Amino acid sequence: MLAQRLIERKRDGGRIEPGEWRALAAAYAASHIPDYQMAALLMACFLKGMDRSETSALTEAMLQSGDTLDLGHIALPRIDKHSMGGVGDKVSLILAPLVASLGVAVPMMSGRSLGHTGGTLDKLESIPGFRTNLSLARAREQVERLGCVMIGQTPEIAPADKKMYALRDATATVESIPLIASSIMSKKLAESLTGLVLDIKCGSGSFLPELERDLELAKIMIEIAASHHCPAVALVTAMDRPLGRACGNALEVEECIAALNGTGPDDLMEVTYALCAEMLMLGGIARSAAEARVLLEGAIADGRAARKFKEVIKAQGGNPDVVDDPALLPQANNCDLYHAPRRGFVARVEPRAIGRGIVELGGGRTAVEDLVDPSVGFVITARPGDWVEAGEPLATIFARDRAGIDTGKRVLGNAILIADEAEPPLPLISHRVTIDGVTPYTR
Amino acid sequence: MLAQRLIERKRDGGRIEPGEWRALAAAYAASHIPDYQMAALLMACFLKGMDRSETSALTEAMLQSGDTLDLGHIALPRIDKHSMGGVGDKVSLILAPLVASLGVAVPMMSGRSLGHTGGTLDKLESIPGFRTNLSLARAREQVERLGCVMIGQTPEIAPADKKMYALRDATATVESIPLIASSIMSKKLAESLTGLVLDIKCGSGSFLPELERDLELAKIMIEIAASHHCPAVALVTAMDRPLGRACGNALEVEECIAALNGTGPDDLMEVTYALCAEMLMLGGIARSAAEARVLLEGAIADGRAARKFKEVIKAQGGNPDVVDDPALLPQANNCDLYHAPRRGFVARVEPRAIGRGIVELGGGRTAVEDLVDPSVGFVITARPGDWVEAGEPLATIFARDRAGIDTGKRVLGNAILIADEAEPPLPLISHRVTIDGVTPYTR
Repeated sequence: MLAQRLIERKRDGGRIEPGEWRALAAAYAASHIPDYQMAALLMACFLKGMDRSETSALTEAMLQSGDTLDLGHIALPRIDKHSMGGVGDKVSLILAPLVASLGVAVPMMSGRSLGHTGGTLDKLESIPGFRTNLSLARAREQVERLGCVMIGQTPEIAPADKKMYALRDATATVESIPLIASSIMSKKLAESLTGLVLDIKCGSGSFLPELERDLELAKIMIEIAASHHCPAVALVTAMDRPLGRACGNALEVEECIAALNGTGPDDLMEVTYALCAEMLMLGGIARSAAEARVLLEGAIADGRAARKFKEVIKAQGGNPDVVDDPALLPQANNCDLYHAPRRGFVARVEPRAIGRGIVELGGGRTAVEDLVDPSVGFVITARPGDWVEAGEPLATIFARDRAGIDTGKRVLGNAILIADEAEPPLPLISHRVTIDGVTPYTR
Repeated sequence: MLAQRLIERKRDGGRIEPGEWRALAAAYAASHIPDYQMAALLMACFLKGMDRSETSALTEAMLQSGDTLDLGHIALPRIDKHSMGGVGDKVSLILAPLVASLGVAVPMMSGRSLGHTGGTLDKLESIPGFRTNLSLARAREQVERLGCVMIGQTPEIAPADKKMYALRDATATVESIPLIASSIMSKKLAESLTGLVLDIKCGSGSFLPELERDLELAKIMIEIAASHHCPAVALVTAMDRPLGRACGNALEVEECIAALNGTGPDDLMEVTYALCAEMLMLGGIARSAAEARVLLEGAIADGRAARKFKEVIKAQGGNPDVVDDPALLPQANNCDLYHAPRRGFVARVEPRAIGRGIVELGGGRTAVEDLVDPSVGFVITARPGDWVEAGEPLATIFARDRAGIDTGKRVLGNAILIADEAEPPLPLISHRVTIDGVTPYTR
């Protein structure tokens, strides 16, 4: 009866009070409210919206529905980064060991790939032996010892969110800003952070392509974090093309290893450094982005970041030798070049098409239970705005078999547009959002 | 996957095609689509609306999900009446035998009381022995033999609607005009009718109190009927006060018997005659309302209508002697008068308050599984606009015990408003709606 009244109120544009959200989340986690009532409520929330205090209350209610990774006893600043996800977005694997090597504790809980976007857990698991399903106790111990852990959402964390997310996926209620914000923040706040950096992806390959909605999402998440005494900063970064060159699990790990060894592609390093700098500033380790940049480049140059990555890999059961010898990563049986079909400017490298292509090659998921082949993917050297000659190699395809190579060529043929003119791509990092507002990003 | 795409499209304001509705209804009836997806879709339909062709397609899809009462071999016109329901609305029990006695076959499928509104099945079942749960075969045989049957929705009729209605009740998606229209029409069209008359209730005691929405509902239902080659006419009638005097199951049957014996209250007879006249005109038995009226009054006066009611009662296992001796109906243990607390005009006799009062006395339902006490209720002689003196009897309360009498007095004290002035009540019958449009009703 309670549930019907609340659905009715939301349906008619009213608001649900914090205590009611709490009761709803607890009852739903305990299966006292059936999925069908929650589905109707979520659709009403999707279509009628939720105000800031409702979004905050739902976040809190989902957080309270489970356990947390209690790290209050660790003296270091505890800071995580969350990305809205995209194609080639491998930043976490570089960022976590890099800032951890500079004295920030990074208790990172990530997700898996789904649809066209990749997932940090799948990338990590392409390292032989690497385990991402640690218990909360083990994760806590590792943060104490190494200042860094990289795991998946455990069953104890925000169970109401876990159940609700699966329901949203089945009921077309995913792309709602308040529901996205509360889902992400209920998990992030369970990491007992002292700061949070958000990488909000903008452009055609983003979950929310429009800048306006991205900024709205960023603001809401920052406000929720603030109301939990967790200062947060968001950067809006480009996802109108893949980030870096490598797209595909093991290929991306290889690119991350290159990055930690000082040879990462420029765009990937820019985004990684910018996000890391925010973490160092939130943690009080650097007073400015410039100061942070010096520290970060130093930790790469002297091998501290790469060593930290090895420690994390070893602690989580993986083979740390991959950092010195990336050939130990899973290798595709077949690879071939993709050549420019004509001369002209690279007008588009469409991330959704690339992401879906990886799924077609067996390297991604259409359903959560799908297995992933870590070896397949693309390394795309052509960048939007480049001038290319006909027949020039633009990318390498990595596939299980010859049919996969053919698939890869078709995918790249659709994804990479060569034209007589090319619009400039989105700025790599366009905006910085804090609790005080939105400013254009300047390095 | 199919279901998600359809939910998404409806969520974004798109339309679902007839073939898709058909697949949805069939899959839902077969439990291949889970309740939670249907709940999200229904909420999206509620909030985004459905156009005429979608409503018609959903009706057709729910109709096709089950069996029908096949009466195509019966040469008589086959005409039913559907009312949106209200308090004191006992018209069906008079109308069905009355028009059947004049050569119209009436295959009537009705519902039970829920909330403040009464239900024809509960009223009929207050006749000792009366069974409303006949099989389709038995119902068909009875229509052939007597020209009239009065039953509930069988499990074979529109199972998708039955399941969906229960889901709508639990998910606050009941009051949607297209969903209401398709639910009603999927059942009515299963009666293989050659005509349909709709009694659309308007005013505070109606399910949809606003005239504008009532007219919209009427138009949609008439269009759906027309697209199934079933001409339909709607009358908009007043439900800002109870219809007739008796409110409560056995009390209403008693009033219906009086009506069939020629002594029904004026307002009840006016509405009944008006609806019956439409049925006779649709059936080609009368060419005008005036001609129909003569026939109807004749069938009451010479006892044909009362005899038909006896035949129906007998055929369905009830005791037909109640028509001659209403004292055979269940009698309440306690009854008492309710007196006017002051002098003045009767300004309101609020049907919702009366209907909820009957539930409080045990004569209605808050949940479908509740048992109903047929004997309790009210007979209200005061009509809006009447001048009354302090202490004058306005109503009789029928209850199980003294506590029920006290409840009844409190209920009537709130429901009957006496004031120095009284606004005129709604016209008893205000509009007539046909496929050609809406006209003010004139007798």
